[in-house]
Amino acid sequence: MQVSILGGGGFLGRKLAARLAAEGTLGGKPVTALTLFDVAEPVAPASAPFPVTCLAGDVVDLPEAALPKGTDVVFHLAAVVSAAAEADYDLGRRVNLRGTDAVVDACRRLTGAGGAPPRVVFTSSVASFSATQADTLGDDARQVPGNSYGAQKAAAELILADASRRRFLDAVSIRLPTVVVRPGRPNKAASSFFSAIVREPLLGLETDLPVADDFAVWVCSPRRAVDWLLHAAAMDTRPMGLDRSITPPGISTTIAHLLQALEDVQPGASAKVRRVRDEAIEAIVGTWPPAFEPLRARTLGFAPHEPLVDVVRAFVEDDLAATRAERANG
Amino acid sequence: MQVSILGGGGFLGRKLAARLAAEGTLGGKPVTALTLFDVAEPVAPASAPFPVTCLAGDVVDLPEAALPKGTDVVFHLAAVVSAAAEADYDLGRRVNLRGTDAVVDACRRLTGAGGAPPRVVFTSSVASFSATQADTLGDDARQVPGNSYGAQKAAAELILADASRRRFLDAVSIRLPTVVVRPGRPNKAASSFFSAIVREPLLGLETDLPVADDFAVWVCSPRRAVDWLLHAAAMDTRPMGLDRSITPPGISTTIAHLLQALEDVQPGASAKVRRVRDEAIEAIVGTWPPAFEPLRARTLGFAPHEPLVDVVRAFVEDDLAATRAERANG
Repeated sequence: MQVSILGGGGFLGRKLAARLAAEGTLGGKPVTALTLFDVAEPVAPASAPFPVTCLAGDVVDLPEAALPKGTDVVFHLAAVVSAAAEADYDLGRRVNLRGTDAVVDACRRLTGAGGAPPRVVFTSSVASFSATQADTLGDDARQVPGNSYGAQKAAAELILADASRRRFLDAVSIRLPTVVVRPGRPNKAASSFFSAIVREPLLGLETDLPVADDFAVWVCSPRRAVDWLLHAAAMDTRPMGLDRSITPPGISTTIAHLLQALEDVQPGASAKVRRVRDEAIEAIVGTWPPAFEPLRARTLGFAPHEPLVDVVRAFVEDDLAATRAERANG
Repeated sequence: MQVSILGGGGFLGRKLAARLAAEGTLGGKPVTALTLFDVAEPVAPASAPFPVTCLAGDVVDLPEAALPKGTDVVFHLAAVVSAAAEADYDLGRRVNLRGTDAVVDACRRLTGAGGAPPRVVFTSSVASFSATQADTLGDDARQVPGNSYGAQKAAAELILADASRRRFLDAVSIRLPTVVVRPGRPNKAASSFFSAIVREPLLGLETDLPVADDFAVWVCSPRRAVDWLLHAAAMDTRPMGLDRSITPPGISTTIAHLLQALEDVQPGASAKVRRVRDEAIEAIVGTWPPAFEPLRARTLGFAPHEPLVDVVRAFVEDDLAATRAERANG
């Protein structure tokens, strides 16, 4: 299996590359080559049992080397995220839409040269939907995004589904929930606090909670997100028909439950969370659907989610030490 | 009201321009200037009580003169239609997606220069949905297109709704049903026969029917399509919220009912229709939804549809003589 990860230097891209390196296989077949592509040259995962090529570039001017001849699977994670796409419309449109067109065209070159349509696993987002805190969305819910990022992701889903129908490629789009617990620092993304209220207390630091304790949110762990990406890379897409998008089985939880899971792992830690309501942040995250009934994903074999306390434990196991070291280094 | 029609040389664009010229007003306010833009320079409607500018050009490189300063309403009808977008992927993507981005950018220039966000009335399509002959779709039905044209239209709806939220413009997207009776000649579009089985017999000519008599289809008349475009240009968009798309109140009918309406207007005419099943055409039109429950459009004031027999009569009144003259001239 020849694999490319576009956005291979990002948080999920790095975790995915590390997992491929650790397992050496994808869908039961050996990985023979991995290409990592990002704006800045990604770092190859440690001790991969296959050659890894790391490339820097612009996804809109995707170099042929990013999807070399014989590519079987492309993980298309390259994106301008929500806050940035909202702040800079042209940048979001360029990367999130033109970038997806560039992936389609690169796959057309591969299939035009006689190859089978490569599997393209695309990370769409829960932000492509809008809803109230009271809603539970079904698999057939219409995407009515409340932000440019979500609109661009929903449009990219349509473009990839059509390209699949035309057999330019063979896409699975996964609408990722809010991923917790993200490593790194708090940032200006409206969703930053969902991870910060777990991560910062585990680092012994105070952090602000801008919404009420009963605020509901649809989340997944980084581990499960990687599981889903790998499943999407190897699954049989024929039962999907024209609809190449999946709402994966995340979990609907509340701030109170997240903090309880934190307490279960480190008693007393949640005392570091300060209630500082922020109506601007509440207005943004308040339009994100808090719950789904992801029956289709379950039918298609996407793994159900682990309990919340395991999500916090996994952060401690996978990311806490590295995050602490990063902070210590500046 | 300063009005531009992009795609002003097409079938609907010409009817719309003629109606504006005849009425002299839009939403009760006098039209002060009309700009018609198309690939080939459109012809100005006869005896318009306002200045008309006709321009030829490429919608992707939209000249400033196509949306001059002070433009209040833009009808964005410029498109590569279904059969052409299916035959030439790059052309469809260029005109249907990049063209819509160009309209967004032209509106951003207008609002950036201090103008109010112009109303943009966009013609989306029933082809942005797929369904079986047994389905009736509600207003919240998810768009899962079975063709590139429909995918591009659905993506353009998302882009225009987002641009509305950002106040670059103020969009209403109308998903037009199959329009019958189109004037002109039979063409290679899969939907050509829906008009041909009425138009050709009225011209005294034989024509082929590629589907069964009980085949169900969602249609509207050219007159009603123009009514809806005009309503969308003047309506209050605030009740639409984030969702700027409308499935207008077309009618669900069958071939048998269409032929009965033809008989009602010209007894014996339907004998000119030959039953020649064509499975390729049936496969394409068989994925188009045959019925909707367009409650939202009714709430938003879109006019209900006239009976089918009036549709046939309107063709006779509005288009039959011109169509006959065109045929006589070559």
